[in-house]
Amino acid sequence: MKSEKVNLVEKLSLFSDYWNPRLVAELNGQHVKLVKLKGEFVWHHHDDEDELFYVLKGQLKMEYRDRTEILNEGELIVVPKGVEHRPVADEEVHIMLFEPASTINTGTTESGLTRDKIESI
Amino acid sequence: MKSEKVNLVEKLSLFSDYWNPRLVAELNGQHVKLVKLKGEFVWHHHDDEDELFYVLKGQLKMEYRDRTEILNEGELIVVPKGVEHRPVADEEVHIMLFEPASTINTGTTESGLTRDKIESI
Repeated sequence: MKSEKVNLVEKLSLFSDYWNPRLVAELNGQHVKLVKLKGEFVWHHHDDEDELFYVLKGQLKMEYRDRTEILNEGELIVVPKGVEHRPVADEEVHIMLFEPASTINTGTTESGLTRDKIESI
Repeated sequence: MKSEKVNLVEKLSLFSDYWNPRLVAELNGQHVKLVKLKGEFVWHHHDDEDELFYVLKGQLKMEYRDRTEILNEGELIVVPKGVEHRPVADEEVHIMLFEPASTINTGTTESGLTRDKIESI
């Protein structure tokens, strides 16, 4: 458990790969992660975890099966458990995630993009 | 449970009072709140809740009994449960809080600043 401050821009400078979340803080069984996105992710859902996406930089398209939400810097969205979604980033996007420690990035969908070990930075 | 996006600047424009957190999202039993701070809060701790402060605007001093952390925009800190702390803002600061739904702003300290009913905006 950290009680020192975390500078998000500094943490974001430590990696450049896409779709590979890094852990920057944890509290109450929840993880705070940073991730860089570019391109289209896989359609997936999480059986048991709601997931929060907060846009730090760029524009995120959160696709649902019936609509798309466009999020710009300073906007967040909660994707409830069970809801199929696909994050899409036409250009590079920086995201802060807030979700239970148990969350797998691709949910119940197995993919080459699945990251089941999360590096702490 | 919301699945539409939340614009933080827009939400922050809806209130101007200090030390009175507003609920903007919830997930996994956790609350996402916005709060404006100015001046000195009360010393307090939370018995059961870790608390995350993320600085959206301004500068926050997080005082612990043995040191002070200075947080600027884009920085966050997790205050672990049981740890006495006092947020201080020399000038107005805008904060996003992540914490369990059970969290009372003044922890175990009763005060005129205690807000046990949180408005959703």
